[in-house]
Amino acid sequence: MSATYSLQEIADYLGAELRGDPACRIQRLNTLEQAGEGELSFLASKAYERYLGTTEASAVLVDARFADALQGNALIIANPYVAYARISAWFDRSAQPLSGIHPTAVVAGSAVLADAVSIGPHATIGERVRIDAGVIIGPGVSIGNDTTIGSGSRLHSNVSVYHGVSIGRNAVIHSSTVIGADGFGFANDGGKWVKIHQLGGVEIGDNVEIGACTTIDRGALGNTVIDDGVILDNHVQIAHNVHIGENTAMAAYSAIAGSTTVGKNCVFAGQAGAVGHISVGDGVVAMARCTISKSTSKAGSYSSGLLMYETPVWRRNAVRFGQLDDMAKRLKKLEKNSLEKDKLE
Amino acid sequence: MSATYSLQEIADYLGAELRGDPACRIQRLNTLEQAGEGELSFLASKAYERYLGTTEASAVLVDARFADALQGNALIIANPYVAYARISAWFDRSAQPLSGIHPTAVVAGSAVLADAVSIGPHATIGERVRIDAGVIIGPGVSIGNDTTIGSGSRLHSNVSVYHGVSIGRNAVIHSSTVIGADGFGFANDGGKWVKIHQLGGVEIGDNVEIGACTTIDRGALGNTVIDDGVILDNHVQIAHNVHIGENTAMAAYSAIAGSTTVGKNCVFAGQAGAVGHISVGDGVVAMARCTISKSTSKAGSYSSGLLMYETPVWRRNAVRFGQLDDMAKRLKKLEKNSLEKDKLE
Amino acid sequence: MSATYSLQEIADYLGAELRGDPACRIQRLNTLEQAGEGELSFLASKAYERYLGTTEASAVLVDARFADALQGNALIIANPYVAYARISAWFDRSAQPLSGIHPTAVVAGSAVLADAVSIGPHATIGERVRIDAGVIIGPGVSIGNDTTIGSGSRLHSNVSVYHGVSIGRNAVIHSSTVIGADGFGFANDGGKWVKIHQLGGVEIGDNVEIGACTTIDRGALGNTVIDDGVILDNHVQIAHNVHIGENTAMAAYSAIAGSTTVGKNCVFAGQAGAVGHISVGDGVVAMARCTISKSTSKAGSYSSGLLMYETPVWRRNAVRFGQLDDMAKRLKKLEKNSLEKDKLE
Repeated sequence: MSATYSLQEIADYLGAELRGDPACRIQRLNTLEQAGEGELSFLASKAYERYLGTTEASAVLVDARFADALQGNALIIANPYVAYARISAWFDRSAQPLSGIHPTAVVAGSAVLADAVSIGPHATIGERVRIDAGVIIGPGVSIGNDTTIGSGSRLHSNVSVYHGVSIGRNAVIHSSTVIGADGFGFANDGGKWVKIHQLGGVEIGDNVEIGACTTIDRGALGNTVIDDGVILDNHVQIAHNVHIGENTAMAAYSAIAGSTTVGKNCVFAGQAGAVGHISVGDGVVAMARCTISKSTSKAGSYSSGLLMYETPVWRRNAVRFGQLDDMAKRLKKLEKNSLEKDKLE
Repeated sequence: MSATYSLQEIADYLGAELRGDPACRIQRLNTLEQAGEGELSFLASKAYERYLGTTEASAVLVDARFADALQGNALIIANPYVAYARISAWFDRSAQPLSGIHPTAVVAGSAVLADAVSIGPHATIGERVRIDAGVIIGPGVSIGNDTTIGSGSRLHSNVSVYHGVSIGRNAVIHSSTVIGADGFGFANDGGKWVKIHQLGGVEIGDNVEIGACTTIDRGALGNTVIDDGVILDNHVQIAHNVHIGENTAMAAYSAIAGSTTVGKNCVFAGQAGAVGHISVGDGVVAMARCTISKSTSKAGSYSSGLLMYETPVWRRNAVRFGQLDDMAKRLKKLEKNSLEKDKLE
Repeated sequence: MSATYSLQEIADYLGAELRGDPACRIQRLNTLEQAGEGELSFLASKAYERYLGTTEASAVLVDARFADALQGNALIIANPYVAYARISAWFDRSAQPLSGIHPTAVVAGSAVLADAVSIGPHATIGERVRIDAGVIIGPGVSIGNDTTIGSGSRLHSNVSVYHGVSIGRNAVIHSSTVIGADGFGFANDGGKWVKIHQLGGVEIGDNVEIGACTTIDRGALGNTVIDDGVILDNHVQIAHNVHIGENTAMAAYSAIAGSTTVGKNCVFAGQAGAVGHISVGDGVVAMARCTISKSTSKAGSYSSGLLMYETPVWRRNAVRFGQLDDMAKRLKKLEKNSLEKDKLE
């Protein structure tokens, strides 16, 4: 049996105005279109307004403008999408009670673990590691020497954290992600690559979420730094000595090359990136596949890349790209001719 | 000693017409160019027809048109490439007998495992997991609570499957892949990100192959769905609530953003992708690096991206891209001038 | 306490000319800007020359041209960046003494391990594996049957190596990386995909470094081959039967499609790639996001992709891309008209 909550409890937690039956029981969340008896839904975008009249949800989170269009119970609140996010935690059944240290985990004698933690099967905890209260370490996770993990953080199965990494409070790190591997630093000596040992570490702030198969490399000298509230999706690459500012969000395959600083509240869409050794200001938005190729302090949206075409149309135009400079020169020449003729006439 | 098979056995299995010695023993598969004594080869493309006369293969899978060009033993069949694929299973030496549950594996008491399974060293099997007959779980694999894995499936080492995931029969999932991690869902509350707990699951059909370091996120509400016969390469990203139709193939780094539906028998080449909240019809082909940026129900090939140039040539033309709109307007003006002059004359 | 070294020891090892105090003790490396007492720095680029006069480093690696600008101790050498790389190994505190086989590791009875190795907790070593002297296998690493690992190599936590892989001496392989998973080979049989079992292996030479979350697939028939001295960053994809030549470097997300041969001393920048079944010559440089789309034997730099624009500017120009062929034809027509009029006059 899943827990249920009364609309009154939910309204109180969210600070929402309740219009309807305070005793109504909510068991699950669902979309307006699919919700039924016992389910709470939300209207976060005008695109879904058409479902308001027909939804079978037991209650809906709406802002005041739309409350009248709703027949059933309403929880009226300024930002229903944020309210949905906040209440979603109540319906997450994946949380488990803390279970202590699994007998198959290998914990170094010098590691310092809070009493209330979960260390999963086959986890490996290195020397002088510090793990604070409420931390959940999944199966097969490896934590290198001298690393610290702040209270309330959760590392899912098969995450690898190297030595000398500092992770703040309430981090969520998904499976196969790697924190603190060597940055890609090599000097070329007559054709052969000489490894530059990566002597820095990684510092991750509080309330950071990191997706699956993502990599954050350790610094060459000094640290790679992820500030509080940053959210990274799957397959993201943060190179050595990068600094990511507070509350910046990066979608899948976003990549920041070495020593670049990214500001606060930036958004990188899928496969967007930034070259190395530049500074990207606060509030920059890089659209999908955009490469931020030089320093920019101006907030706003940047793009590279092309639109989509049917392949035969694309091919006809794509071959012309290689003629663009020639076309520009011929256009200029025609304009000059035209102007000279106008003068002659 | 490796097993060998007679040409007759192979012909019978494939339904091929045998021309030559039915007792000839085959020990391995190889390319026409490199095959020798005891090896079976195939002609799958006219590009390799030139090797037919000189190949030292003991036998060759060919279609009827090419059989006469061959001196040695022939297995004549309509689609030699498919025949090569089917017979390749006989020569795969990596299969191992089922070995039961390794003593170092940690299996929850409430998990239900068929008798004939292999659970590798250091695997972790959660509560109420169901594992059917013939399943092979590699070393270090983690399976979350309430997940089911259908008969004949194989999960290679260090795969992570979260809770509430359903995997069908005969799946192959390669190492470091992550199924069921949280989708990238957050609501922005005055600059800070509030996590939307991802309450859905993942449903994977039968006969699905998933490469290494690939991620399939769980749904926010409702499930992410991969239909029967889908094949995904390495480093693929399937976001929350995506639906991939039967027999669709996606090469490395293909990425489908949240809530998008992809039809049946689509092909995504390397680094192709689709934006979120759209519908991609059956039979769509996205060429390498193409972004499907809007819903399309029309089968056929789509492209974005540019051709390759030597960098100095590219640079001359690339800077003109930013002048394209200006060039188009100037061209129009010249045409207008030219037309007016023609009228005057 | 960290070890320290005298400037004399360092100069002798590097073959540098020492100008200053040979007894000066060095404890760490640091950048010119941030170095202080007890730290050695280096000048690798004219961009940092301005810090030479003010650095508080105890000593600096410089080439002869810049030595006079320096007040303190100098180590004069032709290539200070290579010297920094070489000496960085002395300051890497992550190395651990070899610790033998951890009691939780599972090692097959037929595996042959040198005496001086470290096999980490929860590692799994398959049948007939050979592990040479000085090898370090991290926690949770899985090594498939019949694989060999040469002396001095280090595999970090949760690396997966499949069966039949050969890794040379002094390899470094970072976490979550997968060597020897199946190549993406399927034959299409009337809409359904038939798996082509991948019967080849992987051969990796000496002195190869491979980043985190990188994949190198096994060959379909014959091997995938990585030659000596190759360096691969994170999230790289090497498909089946690819051959990468000596000392080639590939940055994050570089991808080489099946059966392509890449020459020696190539450089692939981030998200660069090559299509399948082509040959890329020695010394080719693929700039970021460049797709090498046909065989090229000419060394030099190649590019695809677009520059970055503010999104409104980009949009105006991007829509014109689809009109390029039309524009080219209209331009040609205007030129023809203009020429004809010139003749008439």
